[in-house]
Amino acid sequence: MRYSLFGESHGPAIGVVLQGVPSGLALDMEFIRAEMARRAPGNSPLATARSEKDAVRIVSGVFEDRTCGTPLCGLIENTDTRSRDYAATRYLARPGHADFTAHLRYGGFEDYRGGGHFSGRLTAPLVFAGAVAKLALRQKGMEIFARIRETAGVEDAPLDLARPDVEALRAAGRKSFAVIDDARGEAMQKAILEARAEGDSVGGVIECFALGLPAGLGSPDMDENIETAVARHVFAVPAVKGLSFGSGFGFSSMRGSEANDAFVPGESIRTRTNHNGGINGGISNGMPVVFSVVIKPTPSIAREQDTVDMRTGEAAKLVITGRHDPCILPRAVPVIEAACALALSEVPGVLS
Amino acid sequence: MRYSLFGESHGPAIGVVLQGVPSGLALDMEFIRAEMARRAPGNSPLATARSEKDAVRIVSGVFEDRTCGTPLCGLIENTDTRSRDYAATRYLARPGHADFTAHLRYGGFEDYRGGGHFSGRLTAPLVFAGAVAKLALRQKGMEIFARIRETAGVEDAPLDLARPDVEALRAAGRKSFAVIDDARGEAMQKAILEARAEGDSVGGVIECFALGLPAGLGSPDMDENIETAVARHVFAVPAVKGLSFGSGFGFSSMRGSEANDAFVPGESIRTRTNHNGGINGGISNGMPVVFSVVIKPTPSIAREQDTVDMRTGEAAKLVITGRHDPCILPRAVPVIEAACALALSEVPGVLS
Amino acid sequence: MRYSLFGESHGPAIGVVLQGVPSGLALDMEFIRAEMARRAPGNSPLATARSEKDAVRIVSGVFEDRTCGTPLCGLIENTDTRSRDYAATRYLARPGHADFTAHLRYGGFEDYRGGGHFSGRLTAPLVFAGAVAKLALRQKGMEIFARIRETAGVEDAPLDLARPDVEALRAAGRKSFAVIDDARGEAMQKAILEARAEGDSVGGVIECFALGLPAGLGSPDMDENIETAVARHVFAVPAVKGLSFGSGFGFSSMRGSEANDAFVPGESIRTRTNHNGGINGGISNGMPVVFSVVIKPTPSIAREQDTVDMRTGEAAKLVITGRHDPCILPRAVPVIEAACALALSEVPGVLS
Amino acid sequence: MRYSLFGESHGPAIGVVLQGVPSGLALDMEFIRAEMARRAPGNSPLATARSEKDAVRIVSGVFEDRTCGTPLCGLIENTDTRSRDYAATRYLARPGHADFTAHLRYGGFEDYRGGGHFSGRLTAPLVFAGAVAKLALRQKGMEIFARIRETAGVEDAPLDLARPDVEALRAAGRKSFAVIDDARGEAMQKAILEARAEGDSVGGVIECFALGLPAGLGSPDMDENIETAVARHVFAVPAVKGLSFGSGFGFSSMRGSEANDAFVPGESIRTRTNHNGGINGGISNGMPVVFSVVIKPTPSIAREQDTVDMRTGEAAKLVITGRHDPCILPRAVPVIEAACALALSEVPGVLS
Repeated sequence: MRYSLFGESHGPAIGVVLQGVPSGLALDMEFIRAEMARRAPGNSPLATARSEKDAVRIVSGVFEDRTCGTPLCGLIENTDTRSRDYAATRYLARPGHADFTAHLRYGGFEDYRGGGHFSGRLTAPLVFAGAVAKLALRQKGMEIFARIRETAGVEDAPLDLARPDVEALRAAGRKSFAVIDDARGEAMQKAILEARAEGDSVGGVIECFALGLPAGLGSPDMDENIETAVARHVFAVPAVKGLSFGSGFGFSSMRGSEANDAFVPGESIRTRTNHNGGINGGISNGMPVVFSVVIKPTPSIAREQDTVDMRTGEAAKLVITGRHDPCILPRAVPVIEAACALALSEVPGVLS
Repeated sequence: MRYSLFGESHGPAIGVVLQGVPSGLALDMEFIRAEMARRAPGNSPLATARSEKDAVRIVSGVFEDRTCGTPLCGLIENTDTRSRDYAATRYLARPGHADFTAHLRYGGFEDYRGGGHFSGRLTAPLVFAGAVAKLALRQKGMEIFARIRETAGVEDAPLDLARPDVEALRAAGRKSFAVIDDARGEAMQKAILEARAEGDSVGGVIECFALGLPAGLGSPDMDENIETAVARHVFAVPAVKGLSFGSGFGFSSMRGSEANDAFVPGESIRTRTNHNGGINGGISNGMPVVFSVVIKPTPSIAREQDTVDMRTGEAAKLVITGRHDPCILPRAVPVIEAACALALSEVPGVLS
Repeated sequence: MRYSLFGESHGPAIGVVLQGVPSGLALDMEFIRAEMARRAPGNSPLATARSEKDAVRIVSGVFEDRTCGTPLCGLIENTDTRSRDYAATRYLARPGHADFTAHLRYGGFEDYRGGGHFSGRLTAPLVFAGAVAKLALRQKGMEIFARIRETAGVEDAPLDLARPDVEALRAAGRKSFAVIDDARGEAMQKAILEARAEGDSVGGVIECFALGLPAGLGSPDMDENIETAVARHVFAVPAVKGLSFGSGFGFSSMRGSEANDAFVPGESIRTRTNHNGGINGGISNGMPVVFSVVIKPTPSIAREQDTVDMRTGEAAKLVITGRHDPCILPRAVPVIEAACALALSEVPGVLS
Repeated sequence: MRYSLFGESHGPAIGVVLQGVPSGLALDMEFIRAEMARRAPGNSPLATARSEKDAVRIVSGVFEDRTCGTPLCGLIENTDTRSRDYAATRYLARPGHADFTAHLRYGGFEDYRGGGHFSGRLTAPLVFAGAVAKLALRQKGMEIFARIRETAGVEDAPLDLARPDVEALRAAGRKSFAVIDDARGEAMQKAILEARAEGDSVGGVIECFALGLPAGLGSPDMDENIETAVARHVFAVPAVKGLSFGSGFGFSSMRGSEANDAFVPGESIRTRTNHNGGINGGISNGMPVVFSVVIKPTPSIAREQDTVDMRTGEAAKLVITGRHDPCILPRAVPVIEAACALALSEVPGVLS
C-alpha cells in the first residue's frame, strides 16, 4: 500500500490516493470516522477552534462497501477557511514553519495561506489513509497503539516494551488526552495551558506500539527494511524531528549486557526484554515494534517573533494571529499511528 | 546517486554498485583510501584485531581516472576470514544480532558466518560509496563532518548548531577517536576499556553536520524529503536505533518561543539558532544540516549470554569468541558521514 | 512528474494526482479544455454517444492560476452513468476486455460496471495530466504531435521521420479525424463505418512525434531510458498492444547500411535519416523522437460472442449492448500524446 | 527480483547485482553455463570471433550452493580486450551506435572502447541474471522459450499463440540457430551470410513465449503491469526497437470479431485464441504470454560510412574494423528470454 497526499490548507480540497489496497476489505466507516475524530480540531481547550468537519468522500476504489483493489481516493472539502488571516503577512516567514523553504523551493508560487501543502491539516487525509491501513492490518491480526509519553517536561508512566499492558494502551487511545496515567496527563495539560497563557507552545514525545507483526518480515535492504519504512513515513509527518526504536537514545548509556535482548524458549522463540523494539537487521523478530517520535513545539505562537521580509530581506516583527494548538501532541497521536500503519502496510509480506 | 551493497562477511567478496554518479569526477584515490582507513579495523586497542586490507578494486564506471557516468562497482575481496569461529554456534542466535531474524527471513539458507550480509563489515563498501559521494558533493561546495558526541555516559563538548566550529570538526575527523575535546575523549576511551575489561560493550551518539547544502532543496514528499532521505540511509546502517535532527529529543522539553529559529537578515536570509537542523518541511533552509544518531552497544560481548537453539527451540548458553569492538563508535563516524553523503546525493538538485 | 490515476467508470468520480509539476506554470485552461475535447466522446458518428462533460475540477496544486509545485489533483465527476446496462451480464466476461483478469485479480470485488477502473474513460484524466505535461514541455521548447497512421487496412501518407512536416502534423491534430491526407482519412472512416454496420470494430496504428527534445537526455539504465519511459506510459494505456521506435518492425527487413543513421555536420550534429527514432542507447540524439503504437480493435462489438459465466464456468452467449466506438483511434490520438508527454516529463533533465 | 548491470566492454570486469532472489534456490551451475554458452560469441560463422570465456564468478548471495536471499553478485572478468581497435576512431561516432549520445550524456568522459557500457557484451551478465530468474520461475512451474521468427526477410514457421508446440520450442532453444523449421533457418543463414559478404548486416524479429504463468497476476498500474514490466526489460536490451504482445501490429488490420479471444469452458477458463498474448488490462489471463521483439541490424558493418568528428563537427568517413556479428539474432534469443524472466520475476506474486 502506498499513498499520495494532495491539497493545500486553504485550497478547494485535500485528500489522498491509496494504491495497493487489498480488495474485498469491508470499510468500517464507523471506525474511520472515529479515527478522524481523534485528530479533528475543536475537541478540547488544547486544540484550535477551527471546526472543519473533515468528512471524507470516497470517490474511487470502493464498490458495494468493500475495497475493489484499485486506487482508493478520499477527498475532504475545505469549508472553513479564513484566508484573510494570512494575506497581510504573506512575505513574513513564520519561524519554525516551512514558509521560507517553500518560498525558495517553489520560487514564490507556493500557496502560502495557512502553510498550504505543509499545513498540519494534511494529516487529516493521512489519518484517513491510516484508518484504511489499520483495517487491512487488523484482518491479519495486527494492532497499533500510540500514546503521549512526555510533554512539557512531564512523563507518562513507563510501559514494558516487551509485554506492554495492551488494555491500558487501548484505553489511552480512546481518551482525548492519550496517556496511560491520568494524573500525569492532568499535570501535562496543566503545563500546556501554562505555556498557552504565556503565548507559548510545547513539544513532546509520542510512543507507538505495533502488536502482532509476524516475525521474519522486512529486510536489511533500505527499500524493505522495517526501520526505514517507519522512518520514511514518520519523518514525512509535519513537526516530527526525531525517531528511535526500542530503547532509542537510551542505548547511549547502556552496556551490551543490558541492551542485548536474551532469547527465551516458548511456543515460539521470543526475547526477555525488547530494547531493540522488535526489529533486528531491519527484520521483525516477533516482539512488539516500538518506537518513539519527538514532536517539536507548535511553531505558531502568540508572541511577537523576529523574522525577515522574504521580498526585501529586511528585518521585521511578526505576530501570528489565528487559531493554533499550544501542543499538537494529543491530535498527533492518531497521526503517528496512521504513519505506522501505512509504513507496515508497505513492507512486503505484511498484507500479502 | 543510488547504491546497492552486496556480499557476506565470509563470502568471496563484498562490494557496492553506485548508480547515477556524475561523469567526469576525478577519483581522488588518496582521499578514498584515507576514508577507508578511518573505518578499517585494527587501528586501535578499541577495535577488532581483524586485519582486512579493505582494498577496493574498481571494476567499472571509471575510465582514465575519472567517472564515466555509468554504474561504478567497487569490490573488496574477503581475505582474512576464519569461518571456523562461527560453525559451532550456527544455530545459537546471538542476542542483539540479526541471526534469528535472518534465519526466519531466509528460511535457514542465510550465510550465518560472522553475521553474513548483516555484518558490520558491509560498512566498508558503504564508506567507499560515501567517499565517492563526498567527492561529488565537494565539487558543489558541500562538506560533511561527524563526531562522537557521547559514549559510555561521557559527553563531548557541545557545538553551536547554527555556526559550528568547522576547523574543530575537521580536526576531529582526522583523529582516531573523533571528538572535539580530547580530554573528554580520553574519559570516553577509559570508560570503553572498563566495559571491555568487564566483557562488555557500550553504545553512544554520533553527531553529523552537512555544510554548504544550498537552501531550497528537498520536498515535503517522502520520496524527496531531506529528513526521510537521511533516515533511509542512516537506519540502513547496522546498529543504528535512532535519528534526530537539530535539537532532536530535546524539543520535548522546549517551548516554541525557544525552538522557533528566528530569521535574521544578511547576505542571504539565515536563522539565529538552528534547532531545526537546517530543514523545514523536508526542505533545506541554508543552515547546517545537523543530525544525531544513536548506536547501540556492540552486541558481540565476551560474557556468557542466554539464548535459544533455533533448531530445537531449547534454552542454551552462548559464549561469543572471536574479535569484536567494545565500542563501534570510532569506526562508525565515517560510516554515518557516508550515509549522510549518499542521502544528500539522492536528493534531486543536490548533484544536478 | 509522475501521475496516479484513480476512479471507476461508474463510480462517483475519476481523476489523477500529478506529482513533481514544476511550480509557476501558468495553467492555460483553454488549452486544457481543447485537449480534453479532442478525447471526449460524442464528437462524431464514429464515437460513443455517452456525453460526459469531462469538466476537470482542479482541487490542489494550483494557486492564483499557476502551479504551486505541490501535488496537482484533477477531478472529473461521473454524471452520465447508466449502470443498469451492465448488471445483467456481470459474470459474463466480455472477450478482449479485462473483466476476467480483474475478476481473478481482485477476487470478485472489482467494480464491474463499464469496465470499472479498466474503462477507457480513465483516459480522460490521463489526457488532463498530459495537457499539464505538454504545457511544461512547451516552456522548454518541446511539442508532441500524433496522428492516425493506419486503420482498417488503410494507411495515411508517410512522413519523413527525420524532418517531418510539422505544420501538417499540427493541422492533423486539430482535425476530428487526425490524419495528414484527408482523402485517405475519408477512406479510413468509410472502412470503419462498414465495420460498424457489420456489428464489428477495427484497430490501427498511431504514430507520435516529440519535437524539440534536447540531445543527451536519458540513460541506458531502465529507470531513466527514454524508450522504457515511453513504453511504461504507452503500455499502461488500455488497448495498446505494441510499440516501436523509428522504423520499428521495419528493421526486420532492413540492412545495417540502410538502418544506420549517418551523421551529418551542421550547427549541431544531426543524422541524415531517423530510423532510430531519435534515440540511441536510451538517450536522445536531437532528432525527433518517433514511435508507433498499435491499438487493438474495440473489444465491445455488437455481435453475439462466445464466453463463459465466471461463477459457474459454463459456456454462454454474450451480446454487448450500450454505446461503443467502432474504432477508438480518433480519440486515442490525444491519449498517446499525453502518454508521450508524461513519459518525457519523467526523464531526468527534461523539465529540470 | 531486480537487477543492476555494471561494467564496460573493455574495463576490468562486467557483472550484475540481483536483489530479491528467493532464498534456498539451488543454483544449477550446469544450466547457468549452458545459458551463457547460448549467448557466447565464437559459436558459429555468424558470430564475432571474440572468445571471451564469460565465466561468471559468484561473489555474494550464495552459500553452500544455494541462494541466501541477500544480493547476488555475478562477476565476469574482461580478458580478451583489444582496446587499440578503438582508439584511432574515438571521436568518430559510429552510426546506429550510442557513441554520439553517450558522448553528450557523459560530457566526453564515457569509456568509448567497444561501446563501453552500451556494448552488447553487457548482455552476458544479463543472461546470467536471467538464468537465475529462470531457475526461480521453474520452481513455480514457469518456462520461457524464444525463437527467431524472422530475419533478412525470411520467416520461420508460425506457431499457435494459444497452444504452441512446446517441444518444438524447446528444441529450437537448443539449436545454435533457434528456429522451429530448419529449412527456413538455413534460408535465413544463407541470407545473413550474403549480407556479410556485402559488408552488411541484417535485423529480425524474436518471438518469446512464457508458459505456466498463473492467471490473475499483474495490474493495470504501470508499476505492476505485466506488459510494462516486459517492456521495461526488453527495451533496456541494446538493439531492441519494438515490442508487441500477441497479434501485435497485426491488430491494425484485424476486426474485433477476430481479435477478441472468446472464452471457453474447461478445467479452468481459457480462451480459444490468444491474440491478446496472455494479458488483458496488464493482468495475466492464464494463456501463454507471447510477445515479439524487433532487433535492428547490427550497427557495426564493414562498409565505409558517413559520420562526423565529435570534436570538430566536421564530416568524416568511418570504416569499422574489428569483430562483429552480421546478425545478432541467434545470440539475442537467450537475451530476450532473460529479459522476459527478469520482467516476470519483478511482478508481485509471481515468485512470492
